[in-house]
Order: sequence, then structure tokens, then C-alpha cells
Amino acid sequence: MEKLGVERWCFHDRDIAPDGKTLAETNANLDEIVELAKQLQSETNIKPLWGTAQLFMHPRYMHGAATSPEVKVYAYAAAQVKKALEVTHYLGGENYVFWGGREGYQTLLNTDMKRELEHLANFLQAAVNHKKKIGFNGTLLIEPKPQEPTKHQYDWDVATTFSFLQKFGLTAGEFKINVECNHATLSGHSCHHELETARINDILGNIDANTGDPQVGWDTDEFLTDISEATLIMSSVVKNDGLAPGGFNFDAKLRRESTDVEDLFIAHISGMDTMARGLRNVAKLIEDGSLDELVRKRYQSFDTEIGAMIEAGKGDFETLEKKVLEWGEPTVPSGKQELAEMLFQSAL
Amino acid sequence: MEKLGVERWCFHDRDIAPDGKTLAETNANLDEIVELAKQLQSETNIKPLWGTAQLFMHPRYMHGAATSPEVKVYAYAAAQVKKALEVTHYLGGENYVFWGGREGYQTLLNTDMKRELEHLANFLQAAVNHKKKIGFNGTLLIEPKPQEPTKHQYDWDVATTFSFLQKFGLTAGEFKINVECNHATLSGHSCHHELETARINDILGNIDANTGDPQVGWDTDEFLTDISEATLIMSSVVKNDGLAPGGFNFDAKLRRESTDVEDLFIAHISGMDTMARGLRNVAKLIEDGSLDELVRKRYQSFDTEIGAMIEAGKGDFETLEKKVLEWGEPTVPSGKQELAEMLFQSAL
Amino acid sequence: MEKLGVERWCFHDRDIAPDGKTLAETNANLDEIVELAKQLQSETNIKPLWGTAQLFMHPRYMHGAATSPEVKVYAYAAAQVKKALEVTHYLGGENYVFWGGREGYQTLLNTDMKRELEHLANFLQAAVNHKKKIGFNGTLLIEPKPQEPTKHQYDWDVATTFSFLQKFGLTAGEFKINVECNHATLSGHSCHHELETARINDILGNIDANTGDPQVGWDTDEFLTDISEATLIMSSVVKNDGLAPGGFNFDAKLRRESTDVEDLFIAHISGMDTMARGLRNVAKLIEDGSLDELVRKRYQSFDTEIGAMIEAGKGDFETLEKKVLEWGEPTVPSGKQELAEMLFQSAL
Amino acid sequence: MEKLGVERWCFHDRDIAPDGKTLAETNANLDEIVELAKQLQSETNIKPLWGTAQLFMHPRYMHGAATSPEVKVYAYAAAQVKKALEVTHYLGGENYVFWGGREGYQTLLNTDMKRELEHLANFLQAAVNHKKKIGFNGTLLIEPKPQEPTKHQYDWDVATTFSFLQKFGLTAGEFKINVECNHATLSGHSCHHELETARINDILGNIDANTGDPQVGWDTDEFLTDISEATLIMSSVVKNDGLAPGGFNFDAKLRRESTDVEDLFIAHISGMDTMARGLRNVAKLIEDGSLDELVRKRYQSFDTEIGAMIEAGKGDFETLEKKVLEWGEPTVPSGKQELAEMLFQSAL
Repeated sequence: MEKLGVERWCFHDRDIAPDGKTLAETNANLDEIVELAKQLQSETNIKPLWGTAQLFMHPRYMHGAATSPEVKVYAYAAAQVKKALEVTHYLGGENYVFWGGREGYQTLLNTDMKRELEHLANFLQAAVNHKKKIGFNGTLLIEPKPQEPTKHQYDWDVATTFSFLQKFGLTAGEFKINVECNHATLSGHSCHHELETARINDILGNIDANTGDPQVGWDTDEFLTDISEATLIMSSVVKNDGLAPGGFNFDAKLRRESTDVEDLFIAHISGMDTMARGLRNVAKLIEDGSLDELVRKRYQSFDTEIGAMIEAGKGDFETLEKKVLEWGEPTVPSGKQELAEMLFQSAL
Repeated sequence: MEKLGVERWCFHDRDIAPDGKTLAETNANLDEIVELAKQLQSETNIKPLWGTAQLFMHPRYMHGAATSPEVKVYAYAAAQVKKALEVTHYLGGENYVFWGGREGYQTLLNTDMKRELEHLANFLQAAVNHKKKIGFNGTLLIEPKPQEPTKHQYDWDVATTFSFLQKFGLTAGEFKINVECNHATLSGHSCHHELETARINDILGNIDANTGDPQVGWDTDEFLTDISEATLIMSSVVKNDGLAPGGFNFDAKLRRESTDVEDLFIAHISGMDTMARGLRNVAKLIEDGSLDELVRKRYQSFDTEIGAMIEAGKGDFETLEKKVLEWGEPTVPSGKQELAEMLFQSAL
Repeated sequence: MEKLGVERWCFHDRDIAPDGKTLAETNANLDEIVELAKQLQSETNIKPLWGTAQLFMHPRYMHGAATSPEVKVYAYAAAQVKKALEVTHYLGGENYVFWGGREGYQTLLNTDMKRELEHLANFLQAAVNHKKKIGFNGTLLIEPKPQEPTKHQYDWDVATTFSFLQKFGLTAGEFKINVECNHATLSGHSCHHELETARINDILGNIDANTGDPQVGWDTDEFLTDISEATLIMSSVVKNDGLAPGGFNFDAKLRRESTDVEDLFIAHISGMDTMARGLRNVAKLIEDGSLDELVRKRYQSFDTEIGAMIEAGKGDFETLEKKVLEWGEPTVPSGKQELAEMLFQSAL
Repeated sequence: MEKLGVERWCFHDRDIAPDGKTLAETNANLDEIVELAKQLQSETNIKPLWGTAQLFMHPRYMHGAATSPEVKVYAYAAAQVKKALEVTHYLGGENYVFWGGREGYQTLLNTDMKRELEHLANFLQAAVNHKKKIGFNGTLLIEPKPQEPTKHQYDWDVATTFSFLQKFGLTAGEFKINVECNHATLSGHSCHHELETARINDILGNIDANTGDPQVGWDTDEFLTDISEATLIMSSVVKNDGLAPGGFNFDAKLRRESTDVEDLFIAHISGMDTMARGLRNVAKLIEDGSLDELVRKRYQSFDTEIGAMIEAGKGDFETLEKKVLEWGEPTVPSGKQELAEMLFQSAL
């Protein structure tokens, strides 16, 4: 990481320490490695961007963790998240991620979706309470994923997650979104769409920059290599005034087919360079200004008069009907879509 | 319709009357046909389940109606919805549908998504205001559709629509959802998932029972012929205590390849019979009770003690951790998925 | 299996015996279990429908077996298939399956597709040669799968596989297709389409009856529970005059979420009953005859005169043009699609 | 076209001349515009890259043209293709395209797929015969498309089309493929995959360079704007020693949302520039040589000894088994996938 110039690391509990035979043993395993991490951190000044608990590999989580039909599994998940929160706090982590994994269903025939969602909300509220209790000030991040291994996961996409947070009163400053680009395409959206949906709702908190082929129907967690996509991602980050205290993370693993140490190192450089080239392109686009100007002009009829009235929530139907009778048939507006794409392309 | 025993009809404004050269002429066209409809209604006792405005065929709506970047298009859409609401009210319609059509985007490069969504919210609020003004008590229904012809439509699915309604304070008793089964599969969900998502959030209002092949990536609007799907749909309807004042509607058209009058009539019978067979199957499932019992038992550990405490929002992480240390490793619960499917299948 | 009344079993080499440290040790492991199988077979009269070699779990097969870029991996795969063929023959197996697994690519950037396909053809020809040498008369079956875990597998679907077999002269009586329904939907087709494509090209040999949700983008290997799909499958089997010496097989495993012994047994019954109900429905359709008659009539204009001339390959464009000038504009034919669906549905 | 520096044009018969009331009138309409085209060609030196017949918009083609169940429709299609071939020849066209359109099915319930495919083969053979009769030496191109508007089109992808051509003996020098990039993604492949599949089977004839979003499930026919995709496309073209007498074509239309003349012109420039940038990148990759070298090295174990023996079709299983016993466990080869991607990316 020092060689790559990376200043933050991420972890999940089971990735850095194995399950023991009991929760006590498991926690002791984790404590041991956490001490080592603490020491390494002090030598390098590398700190956790976030920590998380892995709640899906162990068979006990077969039908979910916070949404398991079995109360003892829910309780086990609670204990595991409690520990992961504490460890993240101890290591100076800036955020904590909720990683869905198996919070969803395979078939509605055996599932009480309403009850499972209420359990999930109560679980997240308990996490907020515990976070406060231990004095952890990091952001809580939810990482939407539509499916795999379940048929349907409850944090399907940003909009679905935002809907859930609103319904259960969980938004007020506590939760933000960790957008994973590969999950975005699996849900039928683009990464840019998910980022923008989070941004305009003030819940964009972090980017898990793994990507994948939208034609492949499962999560392949590839390093980002598409400069065009990186440019779109960076434009959202810039519009969001950055992501801090969140940031970018990669799943630090190679695809199954690349096993050389050389490939592992190259993959990280390649991913980071792609992001850097994306950021440079955004700088070019901003300096040039033509694309922003095109968008501004497209909506300028809403800047004044009737448009401004509508935006102020005062455009009642009767007034508007009168205006239409006065104005006659509106001109068909042009999308200038090709022009927009060419302006974008010129920055690549 | 009398021969088929159908007691409700649905219409969109441009389907029953052509565009004129001006709004005034267009509205006059509509008034003429509405008088005829009124007369036919009085002779047959068939009334509108809902009316709607078609806001996407005319080139003026090329970039949306309430989300057009051009204020005059927004105003035109407002005038058109005003008229459609009034006409639906005049004919005794029980609901009014918002049919998205082109409220979405092709590319974010030329789109101000935040501003477009605010316009849409203001438009819907103005519709509520006008509905009250004219004394129309029918439900306002939104029919989610993920895409086509746009790359992304703002009412993507039920969860996305519910998120939007919550954000802009539009839910309180005014808006419900019209679930279209083919739109459900286009959004990556099943029809049953969309119905249940609406039902558990108290916004299931109507079912547009057209279906399509989930492997086909566009809206084919086929009559429902899958008895298994019909059974799932009807189970949601029964759990919802029916849909009234909403109901079921079919797009009363055949697939492009079936042109005989015979096929037109057969298609309606086939669709209605499929729903009827679905309802009979639900009756069998309810009488038998085994499937409901399986689901009840799956969650019963949440009915008492710690489970009940968690459901009451009092399951703090410290208490749960103590319990886990006391209980030890939880038993892996079984999904009984195959059993659930066999119980379901036995009703078909 | 006796309790279920099943008379054939299937196996892959690594499922019944573990890898040893060397090929010799691995083969010895296999021999040991094969002797046990032989004995159990003699007690029960249950024989192998087919055997196969599993060429994808071991890391050596990371980039394919017969299409690996490394000659030693190709050779290892050859030795493994040699043994699996011999063992299948020894146990009286009726067919041998080539199970692609990883014969495909992740990215064309590092792949010589032409060379890999030639290697695969040579591998299959060597298998034919070895089969003859040992006197094994069973059919060689290829089981197409479009992808997963690779981005693209060379036996994508039936048509792709048939194209490959024709190009390399591998069809002449040696190879047939083992259609897996879940692979069919992953390739964008229906199971029925794949079966019919194999059937009309005289290469339908076996059915791997696992199915999956077409909306889920990976192979879930579920037991068949859809009676409508089972009816379509059985109609292909009946039109094919059965499958023997091939048959039906299920992957004898449950979904990850169903772990009870009860669920395992129920799943097999449920799958078998679904097929049986499908077969009964086909019998009803054949007895009724209306659906076949509808199809016959739809094409009857090709039974005589110009139609028959065209079917005999003698419909030259000049003759046909003269006929059109004589006939005038053709009537638009009706698909009678809704009628066809209703006739089908009435059998369910 | 002169302003853009374009030297070839393409046409379909119904795009340049309207249907008349009879075939004679329709052909007369076409003759009139063809004379004008001839004259314009003589003034500009722009000639047809290809011509084609549009066999799907008119209701008579509702269930296909050469695969219609009605012989009179087949005959009409034959007469239309006859004329289009003659007109293309008259204008000096270099190729003739078969544009599937509706050659496929909606449901197998009403379809005799075997018979329809035989009709299609006879139709194409009759086209070959007519081509020879009139002395037209241009290539016959088939443009695969998986679906839309049909559920399944018979020329699904390159492999399916090649399978069909082989089965009916239609390949020998007469037919090549016109790959459309958007159709490639609709069939679950990449454009690069389809191009390479055609190239290694010696049937790559032309590229219809329209593209589309792989996440959008229908044909959007967008101009190519992705430089990375253009680089992959151009690498296939270079490996194919060019496409002549075929070439590149764009559907010369804008997306529905871009209506300005400015956007129309810009779109063509943008598409052409993207291809040009792709070609430059390919030149960089070839000059650098690292990527080709990586691929060459990956397969070099097949260049000599046992590898060469296998490639010569002499790698029998017994010899290979002996070698494995001698060699021991093969080394797991690395895909060097990340390296391959980084080398590619560096050219962009």
C-alpha cells in the first residue's frame, strides 16, 4: 500500500480473522489481528476508510442476518456488528459499512417481507444507538446490491434504499450510501445514475469502485478500466464537493484468472490511473464549460416568469391552461443529445 | 363488453379523441366523444375504472411532459391533465392514472435530474389541488415503468416511486400505485414482488394485468396466460382485502400478430379465465392453510421473549450480545423452500 | 433412489472420488469407488444414464481444459476424460457427457479464439477415437452453457454448438446435445427453443431438467416446478419419439437455502411430478388435436402448387414475381396466437 | 455526404420509394427514384455500399417474409428481393444485404420452425440463383439480429447464422455477415465477439456500426461514441485485412430526441471520428506489439512437440495420458488478464 501511495484501508471482520468455535473465541481472534493492525497503522499512517461485518458466508446466515426468520441468528448478527463497530472505532475508522449480503429473499412463498423489513429497520436503529453509546462519529454507509446470491435483496438500489430509510425515519444525518458500480449495473442502472440519485438526495457517502460487464448477470468485482465511466463517476464526485469522510475503495482482489503477483500490482495501478484520467477529463470539461452551458440553456425557460412560478410550487393548472391558450402549441425542444455526447467525448 | 360481462372501462384522452390544431380544438374533440361515452354508460351501467392523459406520443413530449426542459411543454401537459381529470370526474370515474410515458432521461449528460424531479413533484401537487377544486374524490394512481422508450424513467418501480412520494410529501392518502406486470419484469422484479411492495406500504391501488416474457427486453403488453403467476397476483389481492375502488384492467389490444376478431375476443376470455383460475387456486391455498402455516412457523421465534423485544424496537446490541454468549451458536434454519413450492404447486 | 423409483444415475468423476496428489493416485481413488458403484448397481439394477469428467474446479483448469493455453493442462484433461470414458463404459453407462465448465474466455484481449476452438475440436475427435478403441457405444453428449463463470463459453447454445460440430465435421452420428433448461434461459432462449433446435437438427440426446428464474443472471439449478414449462418440454420429447438412449436427469442437490432431508426428498418428488403432469398435458393436447390442427392449417398453403414447388427448391424468383403480378396483394395472415395460447392453456 | 467526405451510400427499397397499390406500381415508384440516384451518383462518384429490401413494415410481413406461413407472402417477398437485387446491381452496388426483420417467431405454439427454416434456405438459394442470372457479383450479406419485434429471430447471432448456412450448404463463397454492434449486444455478446466469430470463420463482410446501451433491451441504433469499443472493432477489421468489398455503414438517423440539423451533422462526425480514433489506437497497439506478444506467449506451449502434435490432430488420449504421468501436475497458467487490459488501455 505504501508503494502504491494508498492512505486508507478497508476490512471486513471475517477477512482479517477466522471464525472461532464460540462468539467469545471469534472476538478474541479478531482482537489479536486488530492489535497488529493498530501497530501497522501507527508505523504507516494508513487508517481505515471503513470497517464492516461479513454476515453471509457462515451457514447460520443462509436466510439473512438482520432479516433471518430465526431470532438467534438476528441476535448473533447484532453481536457481530457490535464488535465490528467497536473495532472500527478503535482503529480510527472514518465510516462503517452495512454490507447486505443475504438480506433479501429467494421466494416470496416462504417469506414475510413486511416483517423482515421491520426487523432490518430495528437492527439499523440499534446500530445507531450503539454507535452513539461508544462515541463513534463515523458515517454509517449502506451498500445497495440488487441480488446474488438471493433473488431479491432489500437494498436493491439507491432509490429503494432511500425509500426504506425514509419510511423508517433512518435518514436524519446517520446513513449515507456506498455506491458499488457493479451493483449499479446489476440493478439495471448505470453507476452514474446511482451516484447522481444518491447525490441529489444528499446521501452519497462512498464509492466502491469495482465494476463489471453489464452483460454479465453476476457480480464480477473487476477493477475499473473504462475511462469514460471513470469520467462520469468523477463528475458526480466533483459535483458532490468530494466524498469525505468517505472515499474510494477497491475490492483488493484479482479476477480468478489472474494469479500473478505482477497482475495484482498492475491491477491496482490500472484502477487508480483510470480514476485519475477520469478526474483530468472532468477538469477539462469544467474548464471548457460548454457541456454545463448546454444543460443550463436547456432548462432556462424555468428560470423566470411562469417557469419560476412553477418551480416555486405556484403553477396551478388553471393558470397554466390559460397560458397555453394564449401561447399556442409549444415548440418541440431538441435534446441536443448528440452534441452533449460529442462535448463529453472530446474530453476523453 | 356486455357479452364479456365487464363492468368497467378505462380510457386515455388521445385514444378516444384526436389531437386538434389547438388545445381548444383538441378539448372540443374530446368533449364530443365524452358525451357519447356518457350516453353509452347510461345505457349499459359500465363506468370508468380510470381515465388518464396520454403525454408521450405527440412530438412536443419528446423529452417528457412534467419533466420536459421546456416550460411551455410543462404547461401544455398541465392543461391536458386538467382536462382529463375533469372528464374522468364527469364520467363518474373511480380513479385517475398518471401514465409516465416519457418522464425520464436518455442520458444524464444533458439532464438536470434534480430539477426534473422537483418539476414532477410540483406537477403532481398541482393535480391534487385541482382534483380537490373540482370535487373529484377518485384515487390518483401512478403506474411505474422502468424504461422504454427512455433509458431511465423516474417511476422505475414501486420502491422508487414510493421513495419519490415520501421525499416530496405526496403520499398522505392521495396517491396509490397501478402495478403493471410487464413493467414489473422489465424492472428486474416479478409482478408479485411489485404487488407485495405496494401492499405492505399501503399503496396498492390497481393492477394493469398485462404481462410479458421476462426474457424480452421491451413492453409487449400480452394478456396474462400464466396460471401460476395469476395465483400469486390474486394472493396479493386477497391479502390486500381487494383493490376497490381500484380494479384490474387489460390493455384491450392484441399482439401485433393476432388480427382476427376471433382472436380479440378469445384473448379477453383467456385473460379473464386465467385470473379466475388464479383466484380459485388462492381459495384452495387458504382453505388448506399449510403454506400460511409454514410461513407463520418460520418466523415464530420472533413472537415471544427476545424476538418480541426486538420487534418492539428494544433489542439493543448489548442485551443481544449477552444472549448470544448464553445461547451459543444458533441452529441453521431451513428455508423449507422446496416444501413451500410444492405446497403452492399442489394448488395449481 | 429405490424409494423414488429412479432407474438411472449420473456421476461426474470428482463428485464420487477426490483428487489425489498425482493422476495415478486420483485414478486409484476413482477405481475404488467405481467398484463400490458396480456392486450397488448389481444389487439394484440402477445403471448410469451418463458419466462425465469435471474439468473446471481444480485451479489447473482456470483458463479451460481442452481450451487452456497451456498444453500440459490440455493433456491432463485428455487423461481425465480418458479415464472417465473408461469408467462410464465399465459401469454400463448409456451416454457420456462433455460438460464445458470453463471452455471459453473472459476477455478476447488475451485470447486466441480460433486456436482454442481448433484445440477443442481435436480434443473431441480424440475422444471419439478413444471411445471406439475401448468399444464404448454410448452417445457423446455436449451440454451447452452460455457463460458463468466465464464471460463467454464456446458451447453457448444449441445453435452455436451445432455450428461448431458442423465446421469440424464432428456430427456424423457421434455427438448429440444434452439440453439444460437453466442454461437455455441464460443464453436468452427458452428451454423449449433449445429442445426444438436440437430436435429439428436430429441432435436432441438428453435433458438436464434443472431450471432457473430467467430474471436471475446465473445458474441456480432449481428443480422444475413450472407445469407449463414441463408441458412444452414433454411435447418436444414426444415429437422426438423419446430420448433413449438418453433420458432426464436432475442435479441431485437442493438450493442452498433448503437443508432439511425432508426438503431433499420432496424436491425430487416435486420435480418428477411436474414432469409427469407435463406429460399428461401433452397427452391431452394430442388427443384433442386442435393445436396441431391450427399449426397444420397455418402452413397449408405450402402443401400444394406453388407452395410445394418452393418446398422442392424450385421456386425461382421470376416465376414467383409473375405469380404476384397475377395474384395481387396477399391477404395478411393471422397468427391465431391468442387462440394457440388458449388451446395450450386449456390442457394445463 | 460530400461535405462529410463519405464515398458510399446504402439504401433500402421502401426508404427511398413508397409502396404503391400493386407490385407494378411499387416497382415503378422505385425505378423513378433509382434514376435520380443514378444521376446523383454520376455527379458525385458516390456509389452504393449495399442495397436491401425492407420486408417487415408492411402488414403482409406480420409473420415474416421468407418464413411467413402464407405462400403468397413468400412470393411477394421473392418479387421484392428480386427487384432490390436488380436495382442494387444497376446502381453499381458492391453488396446486397438480407435484413431479417421478422424472420422468426413469437411463440413456438403456432410455429413450425423446421419448415420455416427450410423455406428461408430455399429463398436464399433462389436469391443466389437470381444474382448469377443477372450477373451481379456483389457479396450477399446477412445481418444477424436476435429479436425485436419477434421473440426469436432465426439469424440470432453470427454462430447461429453460420450454423444455418452450413446446414443448408449456403456458405461456399456466396454469403458473408454484416455485423451490427447493437444486435451483438442484444444477443448477449459483445460487438467484438461477433466480429471475431465471423472473422475466424471467413465470413466477416461488413459492419453496421450502430451501437446501443447493453442495458437497454431493444435496438436503439445509436452512433458509436465509445472509443474503447471502436478500438476493438478496428482491431478485428485490421486482422481481417479490411472489409472490402464491404465497409462500414451507419443508420443515418438521429435518436428520437435529437432533432436539430446541427445534431444530425454532429452525430455523423462524432461516429466517424470515434472510428478514426479507434483505428489510431490499433496502430499504436500494433507498433507497440506488447499485447500481441502477450497472447503469442500465452499459447506458445502449443507451438512445438506435444502441442504441435495436438494441433496436427494426432494427440491421442493414450499418448497424452503417458505424458501426464511423466510430467506430473501442470503449473496453473496465469491469464495475465489485468496486464492485457492495461496494455490495451494504454493505447486509448
